[in-house]
Amino acid sequence: MKRAMVYIQSGGPTAVINTSLYGAIMEAKKHPEEISAIYGSCHGIEGLIDDDLIDLNQEEQKTLDLLKQTPGAILGTTRYKLPKDINDPQYQKILSTIKKHDIGYVFVNGGNDSMDTCNKLSILCKDLNLDCHVIGVPKTVDNDLALTDHSLGFPSAAKHVINLVKEVCIDAACYKKGKVFIIEIMGRNAGWLTGSVDLLPEGERPDLIYLPENVFSVDDFLASVKDIYERKGHAIAAISEGIVFERDASTARIDAFNHVQLGGAADALSKIVERRLDLPTRSIELSLAQRADVILASKVDQDEALECGKIAVIKALEGATGKMISIKRVSNNPYTVKYVAEDISKIANEEATVPASMMAGVTHMAPAFKEYLLPLVQGETNVKFKNGVFESAVLKGIKVR
Amino acid sequence: MKRAMVYIQSGGPTAVINTSLYGAIMEAKKHPEEISAIYGSCHGIEGLIDDDLIDLNQEEQKTLDLLKQTPGAILGTTRYKLPKDINDPQYQKILSTIKKHDIGYVFVNGGNDSMDTCNKLSILCKDLNLDCHVIGVPKTVDNDLALTDHSLGFPSAAKHVINLVKEVCIDAACYKKGKVFIIEIMGRNAGWLTGSVDLLPEGERPDLIYLPENVFSVDDFLASVKDIYERKGHAIAAISEGIVFERDASTARIDAFNHVQLGGAADALSKIVERRLDLPTRSIELSLAQRADVILASKVDQDEALECGKIAVIKALEGATGKMISIKRVSNNPYTVKYVAEDISKIANEEATVPASMMAGVTHMAPAFKEYLLPLVQGETNVKFKNGVFESAVLKGIKVR
Repeated sequence: MKRAMVYIQSGGPTAVINTSLYGAIMEAKKHPEEISAIYGSCHGIEGLIDDDLIDLNQEEQKTLDLLKQTPGAILGTTRYKLPKDINDPQYQKILSTIKKHDIGYVFVNGGNDSMDTCNKLSILCKDLNLDCHVIGVPKTVDNDLALTDHSLGFPSAAKHVINLVKEVCIDAACYKKGKVFIIEIMGRNAGWLTGSVDLLPEGERPDLIYLPENVFSVDDFLASVKDIYERKGHAIAAISEGIVFERDASTARIDAFNHVQLGGAADALSKIVERRLDLPTRSIELSLAQRADVILASKVDQDEALECGKIAVIKALEGATGKMISIKRVSNNPYTVKYVAEDISKIANEEATVPASMMAGVTHMAPAFKEYLLPLVQGETNVKFKNGVFESAVLKGIKVR
Repeated sequence: MKRAMVYIQSGGPTAVINTSLYGAIMEAKKHPEEISAIYGSCHGIEGLIDDDLIDLNQEEQKTLDLLKQTPGAILGTTRYKLPKDINDPQYQKILSTIKKHDIGYVFVNGGNDSMDTCNKLSILCKDLNLDCHVIGVPKTVDNDLALTDHSLGFPSAAKHVINLVKEVCIDAACYKKGKVFIIEIMGRNAGWLTGSVDLLPEGERPDLIYLPENVFSVDDFLASVKDIYERKGHAIAAISEGIVFERDASTARIDAFNHVQLGGAADALSKIVERRLDLPTRSIELSLAQRADVILASKVDQDEALECGKIAVIKALEGATGKMISIKRVSNNPYTVKYVAEDISKIANEEATVPASMMAGVTHMAPAFKEYLLPLVQGETNVKFKNGVFESAVLKGIKVR
């Protein structure tokens, strides 16, 4: 029986979130007997609630091909959290959209919060005996999704961070009397991205690496900085945005998922260094480009993102539902993976942090971390440029009536 | 008569400062009859003062080839300003180093402050009838050097800014209710780099562009932001770090050249938006990577940097001194330039800002700006990567006795 499919992008974008969409579209086009229409949901789950869908079959192939080098979430995204109460009217609206367009396949491409959405949706469909298959595609630069070796988007974000931090470190080291540089890197409760700078060799890397998994001692930090600065004439620390230390809690803001909004840790630490060590500082908060930089996307990440999008469609057609496509590492050398469908209920709202075995004390990473990360950042994607600027897809975005 | 040459890198690095050094070394190697030794001065003019030179002839070719994709100033740099008084003992030290190593050619690769160093040095040599030729090679991401069409390093910095801002803008636009994004871009008194985002098309660019050349009105800014946010659900402003508006002057710091140290304008403006418009904000200060990003270097910039390094050597050998190699644009389409030796005394401490003819009001650029910038950001340099990280040169750095 031919049914429509709808693709949802949810949560913060990554450099490869649109590549997974591309993979799903390309696979779906191979199954015209089973998939009657390929829809995109505008702004995440909100598109299903508000019956706001676009017809992806009407996009030209050359536009679709550019999805692989398009940042952001091209369908629009959301941080909206579905209500706990299954009787909430929002669910009726979703069901109405599903029925109206005869949707048999729903794909949710997101992180742990989005997998919560995915989970609720699949439970709803099961409870109502609706023949609608809900499949999750993993994505988060934070790399904190459970039951997968890594999350799509993390390797590319790591590659961006590693390369930009190398540039900053080399630049920072070229003055005789330099500054104390504090580089703030994305990572709410998991320090995967911050730890990634450990891939850089001595002389091109931060002297100190602080992950949110460890307790951050301002006094120990200041002592280390003072010592390094006296020896080298500058000091560079990489810190996760999520490191916890005493500061004005009144500046913290809360988002829809009850997470404290982060950012500003490097700036706060810089002020402490200036006040207590009387050293010149420069705080650097790596920007949104951490999750948006398609130019430095990892080829491995891009290939896996494409693959996960395809496999999600295949699994859904095979009848799977309430599953997330998970990446299992088979071997490191040569690097090989397999893709497995894991129960979303085991993943939703869980958080995978950096294990103690991958850390060496509170300021460095252990060799196991490098072994884990090295295969993931391999390969360039050779983005197409025009007039010095990378090209990107712009959808026609024809609305489904 | 065979004489030694010494190369000085001065001021803030750019993505192509080491490419000019590469050009100069490659050219110098072609003239073994005239150039007895190729030295690098460690940490700018300080190397001449302290007799701290390295022998660049002892570096391997494969290391030199990597200079083209090495950020920072590989010889080390400085912000040290030579004293006004020509009888200051520092000058005696410089002369002593010049005489000791029989230095006949000095190259100073820097911006307007460094051209002041270059100017003083050439006057000193002339006054003393020293047969030592002093030539400047232009460089500054700020693009504020006088008497040259543009400064080496600016096109690459612009390309970095344009591409990262495009990524941020597309990412920022994918939420239904987004934020007010304020992106701070390098530029002390000249808004060339900030203006460069004008190359991006509608939908992929900041809504508002503020240069330090114009008076910045907080009230007008807030009115524009409010209007745009109400229409689009988010608003993006690009501002120069040097824009002047009422804020706590106590946070300003002064460097050795009496410039106020910048940074923090976006953060300060964000707080004003939150307080007065009650809108969510995110301030983004593009990092040091603006001047260090070799991955996004412009091919045109790289080629010109190489050429200027070569021509500096040729001009010095021809007997020129007290000159800076200046780029003159011959035509835009096809883009062609010629290189001219200009008097350094006319360039030192001057500042070229964005002319009124290139701006359209206080929030947009005029077509003339795009015509100027477009040829400069063309072409990719195809940087070599290894394990996901760009390769870079590490010098042996053998000291000259």
